[in-house]
Order: sequence, then structure tokens, then C-alpha cells
Amino acid sequence: MTFPPIREELRGIEPYGAPQLDVPVALNTNENPYGPSAACADDVAAAVREATTTLNRYPDREHVALRTALAAYLSRDTVPTRGFEIGVEQVWAANGSNEVMLQLLQAFGGPGRRALSFAPTYSMYPEYARDTSTDWVQGHRAEDFSLDLDRARETVERERPSVVLLPSPNNPTGTALPPEAVGMLCEAAGDGLVVVDEAYTEFRREGTPSALELLPEHRNLVVTRTMSKAFALAGGRVGYLAADPAICDAIRVVRLPYHLSAVTQAVALAALRHAPELLGRVDDLRRERDACVGWLREQGLTVADSDANFVLFGTFADRHALWQDLVDQGVLIRETGPDGWLRVSIGTPEEMVAFRDALLTSLDRLADRPAGPTTSTTDQGVPA
Amino acid sequence: MTFPPIREELRGIEPYGAPQLDVPVALNTNENPYGPSAACADDVAAAVREATTTLNRYPDREHVALRTALAAYLSRDTVPTRGFEIGVEQVWAANGSNEVMLQLLQAFGGPGRRALSFAPTYSMYPEYARDTSTDWVQGHRAEDFSLDLDRARETVERERPSVVLLPSPNNPTGTALPPEAVGMLCEAAGDGLVVVDEAYTEFRREGTPSALELLPEHRNLVVTRTMSKAFALAGGRVGYLAADPAICDAIRVVRLPYHLSAVTQAVALAALRHAPELLGRVDDLRRERDACVGWLREQGLTVADSDANFVLFGTFADRHALWQDLVDQGVLIRETGPDGWLRVSIGTPEEMVAFRDALLTSLDRLADRPAGPTTSTTDQGVPA
Repeated sequence: MTFPPIREELRGIEPYGAPQLDVPVALNTNENPYGPSAACADDVAAAVREATTTLNRYPDREHVALRTALAAYLSRDTVPTRGFEIGVEQVWAANGSNEVMLQLLQAFGGPGRRALSFAPTYSMYPEYARDTSTDWVQGHRAEDFSLDLDRARETVERERPSVVLLPSPNNPTGTALPPEAVGMLCEAAGDGLVVVDEAYTEFRREGTPSALELLPEHRNLVVTRTMSKAFALAGGRVGYLAADPAICDAIRVVRLPYHLSAVTQAVALAALRHAPELLGRVDDLRRERDACVGWLREQGLTVADSDANFVLFGTFADRHALWQDLVDQGVLIRETGPDGWLRVSIGTPEEMVAFRDALLTSLDRLADRPAGPTTSTTDQGVPA
Repeated sequence: MTFPPIREELRGIEPYGAPQLDVPVALNTNENPYGPSAACADDVAAAVREATTTLNRYPDREHVALRTALAAYLSRDTVPTRGFEIGVEQVWAANGSNEVMLQLLQAFGGPGRRALSFAPTYSMYPEYARDTSTDWVQGHRAEDFSLDLDRARETVERERPSVVLLPSPNNPTGTALPPEAVGMLCEAAGDGLVVVDEAYTEFRREGTPSALELLPEHRNLVVTRTMSKAFALAGGRVGYLAADPAICDAIRVVRLPYHLSAVTQAVALAALRHAPELLGRVDDLRRERDACVGWLREQGLTVADSDANFVLFGTFADRHALWQDLVDQGVLIRETGPDGWLRVSIGTPEEMVAFRDALLTSLDRLADRPAGPTTSTTDQGVPA
């Protein structure tokens, strides 16, 4: 050991995180651009005022009130489509869906076990695996970022992961998984878990179902969600999952006692009471996203279909130069995904105008505009 | 693998946590019995109201404002005694000191490495080790719960742990470590870390120093603290540490991005502004503790000296029967520590009267009163 005695595999690693730059237009972390209303903030403050009077006491370890409210929220997806409710015993929450993922890998991954995802995929997954000493196996998506089902099944059957991580819509591509893909991988995984990460699911297009609907058929299916995106609560740090109660019981063994503060529970409950308002901008953002996809394609760019609140586009010979040129114009997007691609979060109409203007300027200035036609599917355009 | 595919070593384990029973007098989790005032709750609510307006944005990953305030708070211990300040770059915070400990073991423990503590010690430590796949090594304290320095050094030199965990005051015994013990173990540990867990340090007796004073001499020393105890903020979940900046940098690699919510940061900052009020009951609790130690000894019980807000006493042939008999009278204490001992948290004067009355009743009823004199040191009695 040398000082500090950090683990060998962590030495020299930069901490994960998008650059936090002070720019007029921040479209880099897929936040919801619309903050809570004054009425919502008042209600959150009142709820915290109430919780504060007993903050000398530890919070409810089981966060039953919050899990009950989250179960009711999720049941809005499953009752109309499949006629079943999500029960409180199927729900578990933590400080962001990243803590949910860490808990899942602590309980079901670890030394001698494997976690698998299909690239391009969320860039934090290998870090969760590393931090739980879980072996990381990376499969691959097709050229258009969809999942080749035969190849995916073969990968799962060969690697026997104890956890498969499937973002849907995928980050950073925006691609949603068809239900048959989820069902097939749940079968292929045997007793291994299939975690469908639905962080962005509220932004999915009409006709794209949630994996929640498949819970009754697959006891090894875990669906994770977050309040950070559609719910406009990134600063509140609340993620959650729905799964078989036995999976929640296993997480209880590894969760830190009292992991979810009384304040966090109160804030999340208040936000859930304001769901109609907080989610009220989701349709606006979906329209803005579809318009963004269409506009980028009109510029001759290649654009991935998106069911999320961000759009991946490219490809550029020097994406870093383009990213920097946009920053110089006050527009911060994200340099992520396969080489040559960039990702933009969907902001307000004004922010998207600023993004489009800056992008046109940069493309002209850098002369890094691809000449060819789009290669991804083109069923998503400017809405009527 | 069988379903659910929980790790073999976790199968059948009960989740950690004191029983959460609904009783009139809860003296089992070392909470501060005095809740925040209305003025403090108002200020917390106003701070959260302000933070809520931008909750759609991710929080400051570096929680700089909070770390600055915590550094100033810690400097109150080091400036008068040793004339140096704790800098913001030496401070790191997380959701409770248990998350701080988990992060320390993720960065500095893990497979192939060892964490060491001396029993009796905090019962969560082996769980943190298990959940980070760190090998757990347990040394032993002396009969009176102090640390035999020669034996402790031998254990450290033989086992070469990458992390030594030393609660001071110790949980569940209340025993504080002398500074020479901390310094000696920092030397013996080489490049390994020595983590002094000062969760209860604000309750220490006059003349007991904090390990913070030793930071300039030992770069491998980590001092952890919490706002859950003296600060009366158990429901807020804020723990923190002071250490060499290189140690904070290593933690940044394993911390989950945005682990500390904007709300938690706002609540902790507001609570720190109310430090004089929130800490105002510490002296009352110390007096109540000393009185409790003295009274229990007058009853012929063996009682460990305590620098914390709890007291360990015994010994009983059937401690569970006594614990249950107290619960039946509406008084919940903790069945923890070495066999035969029980631990009581210090509550309000009224709660302590209820505890003493119930204990006398139970001792008579169960006839489980030890006959012999006390065996632990007796420098702590009823204050004048």
C-alpha cells in the first residue's frame, strides 16, 4: 500500500460527472427545464416544516408512506393497460436511482458475479459494477441502437450474468425496448435479474409500453424509475423500483439503515401530490423533442429516434471541437455516446432556439457537417 | 443461482436495525430527545422553500457551501486547542455517517483487503465490510472496554488492515480513546487509514480531546462525525468526515454522483446556523448521563464509564427477559453489546424517571439483580 491506500483499480480515475459550467443554456444533464411552481414549493416547504419538528428522531426505515404513494403512481401505468395494481411490498426507494442500482448490485452482484449491459449504454453502469466488485460484461447494440434479440439472448446465455441492465429508453441513444425484448431476456436470464431502467419512461412516445406491464409474468424483472427527470425533482434525489417482494427483501439486507431521510420522504410525498403540475410539461417536452429530431435531420444530420427528453445526433469528425464551439456560444450539451455523436437535452422553446442557432453557427464555422443522408430510422419528424 | 439470486453470504440475514416499537419512552437509538424549536423549523422550511424553486436541477455535487460550514464548525474544536483550522478541502459529507463509512470502505477496502475494529464495537461495521467485500478482522478491548495499547498495536501490525475503525466514544460502551491510542495506532497502521468515529463526541466529558487535534500529525487519520446525535438531526441524515484532502479525492471516485440532495444540503446548512440552540441541550444530557451512571451503580449494577449520550450496564443472566419486561412497562432500551449487558439512551428527565422506575420494578420482578460490586472504573458518579 502507498498513501492514500485507494484500491489499485481506482487510482488515477476521474470522478464521474458532467462538467458543471456556468452557461446561459445548460442542455447537458437531461434535467426538466421547468421548475416547480410557487404553490408546489409552498407545499414542499410546509411538509418539511412539519417533518422538521421531529428531525431529532430517525426516519421510517421502511418509508411506507412514500412507497405507498409510489405504488399508486406506478399503478396508473398498469391498471388501464393490464388491470393490475403495483403493491407497496413491490416498491423500494433510495437516494436517486443510482443508489437503487448500487443496492441491487450489492445484493445480487459482487465478487464472482457478472453484470451485463449492451453498449452504447448508460456510462455509470460499469462504475456501479466496479464499486461493488462485480465483473462487467458489455454486449453490443445494433448499428441503429436497437437490440438484436438473437444476439442479445446468446450473450445472456453465454455470460450467465446475475444482473442484466437495460435502460429503456436507452441513455444516451433514447431508444426504447419493445416488450418482446424484455420478456425474452427475462426468460434467457434464468434466475438472474433483468433490470429495466425506465428513468426517462414518462417521455416515451404513444404506443411504447412500460416494462411494468410484464411484472406479473417475470419474477426476475426489476423496473427502476426516478423522480429526477419528468418529475422535475433532480435536486431531491429520489429513485425507486418495482419488483417481486423477495427482491425488495434482499435489498433490505444491504441498504444502509435509515438511508432515506425524513426530509427526502416528505419532499417526495409532496411532489407526488403535485404530479399533475410537475408532469404537466412532459407533453410540451415530447413535442419539442420530436421537433428537434426533425430539425436536426433537415440539417442532414444522423439522429437516433428518441423516446426520452434528449436527442443523440452526429456524426462529427471532431465532436469535441463542436462541443467546445457550442460552449463558447453559451450552449452546454453533452459529449457522450459513441465516438462522433453528441447529446442534447430538451429545454424550453427559447433554449432550443438558442441551441439551433448556435449549432448552425458552429457547423458553418467548423465545416464539420456530414454530407450523407441519415442512416437511422426516420419515423420521428416535426409533428403536424 | 436460485431465485432471488441474492449473494450466498446474505441469504437468511435479517436486515440491521433496532426494533421500531410504538412505546411511550424510546431510549434505544441514542437520539437526542429534544427536537428543533419552532424558530429552527421555520428557518429549515424557508431554506427548503428556496431550494425547491430549482429542484428540477441537479444539486452541487461538491456541496461546497455545506462543507465550508462544517469546516467552520469543526474548527471550533481545533482553533482553541491547537490553533489550526480545518479547511473545506479536508471535509466530505454524505447521507449519514454510515454512507461516509461505506464510501471509505469502497475506496480503501474491498476484496483482498482488511478492515479491523476492537470488540465490543459498533455492530454495523462488519456489515459495511461485508457489503464492500472487505475481509473483517476483530480485535478485542480489555475487560473494562478500554484499549490495551500494546495488544492493539500488535493486532494492527499483524493484520495490516487498510482501514482501522475506532469509535470514540465507543458504541455501545461509551468509552473514549485517549489521544496517545489514536496516535500510536496511526503510526502502527503505516499507510492504512485509522478512522476515528466521533458520532457521539459532543457528549464527551471535560478534558477528553477530539481526534481532530491530531490531524496535522497523521495524514492517515480520518475523523467522522454526524449531525444525528448532539445536533438532534437524526431524521436529516447528514454525516461527514475530516481528513487529508487526498482521502476526500479518493472518495470522489466512488461516491454516487449527486449523492447529497439539494434539500439535504439546505437543511444541514440551516441546522448549522442554529447550532447554539440545537447543541444547547448537550450539557443537560451530559449531566443526566452522569446521574444515570451514578444511580445505576448505586443499584449495585456494573456500569461502563460513558462519554456518550448512552450508558451500558449489566450484567444480567437473562438480559432479554429484562429488556422485554421494560418494554412491557413502555420503556424501550437496546439489547446490544456483550452478553448480559443492556444499553440505555439518555432522554429527558421525565423519560429517565420512567426508565429508573421501570428498571426497579423489573429487577424486583425478575430477581435478576447482580449481587457483586461494580467491576468497571468508577470515576463517573452523580454530579454535585
